[in-house]
Amino acid sequence: MTPIQTIWLDPQDPTTVWIIDQRALPHELVHEPLKTTAQAAVAIKEMHVRGAPLIGATAAWGLYLAMLEYQGAVDFDNYLAQVIDQLQNTRPTAVDLFNALEASQLSIRAAAPHDRVAVARQAAEDFATASAAQCRAIGVHGLEVLRDIAATKPGETINILTHCNAGKLACIDYGTATAPIYLAHEKGLPIHVWVDETRPRNQGARLTAYELAAAGIPHTVIVDNLGGHLMQHGMVDVVFVGTDRTTRQGDVANKIGTYLKALAAHDNGVPFYVGLPTSTIDWTIRDGLREIPIEERGGDEVTHIQGRLDNKNQWVQLTPDASPGLNYGFDVTPARLVTGLITERGICAASEEGLLGLFPEGEG
Amino acid sequence: MTPIQTIWLDPQDPTTVWIIDQRALPHELVHEPLKTTAQAAVAIKEMHVRGAPLIGATAAWGLYLAMLEYQGAVDFDNYLAQVIDQLQNTRPTAVDLFNALEASQLSIRAAAPHDRVAVARQAAEDFATASAAQCRAIGVHGLEVLRDIAATKPGETINILTHCNAGKLACIDYGTATAPIYLAHEKGLPIHVWVDETRPRNQGARLTAYELAAAGIPHTVIVDNLGGHLMQHGMVDVVFVGTDRTTRQGDVANKIGTYLKALAAHDNGVPFYVGLPTSTIDWTIRDGLREIPIEERGGDEVTHIQGRLDNKNQWVQLTPDASPGLNYGFDVTPARLVTGLITERGICAASEEGLLGLFPEGEG
Repeated sequence: MTPIQTIWLDPQDPTTVWIIDQRALPHELVHEPLKTTAQAAVAIKEMHVRGAPLIGATAAWGLYLAMLEYQGAVDFDNYLAQVIDQLQNTRPTAVDLFNALEASQLSIRAAAPHDRVAVARQAAEDFATASAAQCRAIGVHGLEVLRDIAATKPGETINILTHCNAGKLACIDYGTATAPIYLAHEKGLPIHVWVDETRPRNQGARLTAYELAAAGIPHTVIVDNLGGHLMQHGMVDVVFVGTDRTTRQGDVANKIGTYLKALAAHDNGVPFYVGLPTSTIDWTIRDGLREIPIEERGGDEVTHIQGRLDNKNQWVQLTPDASPGLNYGFDVTPARLVTGLITERGICAASEEGLLGLFPEGEG
Repeated sequence: MTPIQTIWLDPQDPTTVWIIDQRALPHELVHEPLKTTAQAAVAIKEMHVRGAPLIGATAAWGLYLAMLEYQGAVDFDNYLAQVIDQLQNTRPTAVDLFNALEASQLSIRAAAPHDRVAVARQAAEDFATASAAQCRAIGVHGLEVLRDIAATKPGETINILTHCNAGKLACIDYGTATAPIYLAHEKGLPIHVWVDETRPRNQGARLTAYELAAAGIPHTVIVDNLGGHLMQHGMVDVVFVGTDRTTRQGDVANKIGTYLKALAAHDNGVPFYVGLPTSTIDWTIRDGLREIPIEERGGDEVTHIQGRLDNKNQWVQLTPDASPGLNYGFDVTPARLVTGLITERGICAASEEGLLGLFPEGEG
């Protein structure tokens, strides 16, 4: 399996954090250096990086860069509040961003001034290490779902549908929705993945396909319109998706279009699982439809699309000049449509009772 | 309103049928001459023309061209069977194709040899005239649905969602799903249309948007993933779509992804109407999921997309080289998800009883 590192500190130069500029994938692998908090904020907002856990990690590293940048000329508390604000005002939906910044901030505030850089670095590394470990644990638990399906159709291929990219490229390693897929492939289970292209930004066609191809996992890219038909005809055994924010009653906000796949899964008796590390849980809210802020992005992501032509990534216009586009980034899948939440601590029902059973700390 | 003619006999040269090569829209308006049955078959198969009624009309004109081409050297019955076969083996899902050819064939077989050209021309013109009249009648009946919605929110904009292009460009005039929209706009009802882009071929973003822009009707192009979210948030008052084949129990095959929108409409209490002329009814089948043949097209329509760059229509690659695509053109929406069928004779329930109430000839 080709290793994919999604964010890392330069081993020779600790003033530089490296990311993959994911906008150029799958056709170009572009490494981008981040040297300032402002660059980290732009990388999040403009989706050089994306995916809830990776957004969180990038924010934590952005705070590390802020500690390097701090010159002492302004009041530190004001400075910290301002850079956190800068990093938070990038993308509103994924709660990992806020959770990662909160954890780093607590460590930094508790540290002596000369320790702030080291503490911020440790907090970023801890977030990344914890995220990778959580994703692997999600894989271990999700693998059981695939093994149960395999037992019902010995020797036959298990068809998994996924939406967007909740893969390694959204995380530090393994991914959330893809973790069970990677582990099943390692264990030799016969699997095949239906990859929703995931308009408008095509994270499925560009990123999930890229990852799965790199890992040698059989997969097919489909338009977002196809999944319902495949489920009607028994061509999908299970759906695995990620989440950018999970409410305490188990509603999940994930990439726009996830809700439609959940409806189709429900209508056809196909199990629909959501993989999530702790960092995506927002214990402060219940009703996802009413309480999760949904990011609105530029209509140009709808009216135009990027693809490969003449060996270059280029944007083409899809619509008439006179036709505007509207672009919400996420939708909310109500808990009633979710078969189970696959967390690093096990699988639970998508409900407050289910979540609190695994995470009693959510009571607080 | 800009008039759009979708197929017509050259008034100066009765050996030439003209179509719009719709592959070049919305950026170029290309008129293409058809002079042979083979050219008509290619135009259908390669989607220079598309949309159930227009496919039917093109097939009827293709048979007219076959009558012009007939040299008498081969047995006429064999010749007729062979050209019908050629025209039928283009696209399997829309039943208009078969219905239009059947009507033309009956007239031609009944005609004296020297009348065949004139009879085939008349049959093609009759199909087109009937289709346009049926579409207008669909508009008249569908307008009542919009008036009823308008009465519940006086002065407010009525938001209509549509999928694919069941518009003028799919038909001869008015369209099926769009007919109530055009009539409502003529009558001054405040309307706005959400246009699903409709991957893979983007008939919404390219054709419906083009039509609505030409008619000055407010509209917004959205990705196919967005409709569920809009319905969850009360931003859709009604869904209007077309159908390529309607079974006698009211199941409808329409462009891939229609089923997902029907599920979302059902889940959110949004009325979901299907506009259809008689020519899309297939009285010979009941269960759409099991009995309607679903066209599979090339995966390249998924892995690549056409758009405008440097003032030219160009194809760009969306996926990694190693990732294949799968491409079914249609899905089936079960009757249970359809609020009503809007036909040229009125609106009926999506059921055998409903259809037979309007079309007692279906009993036969």
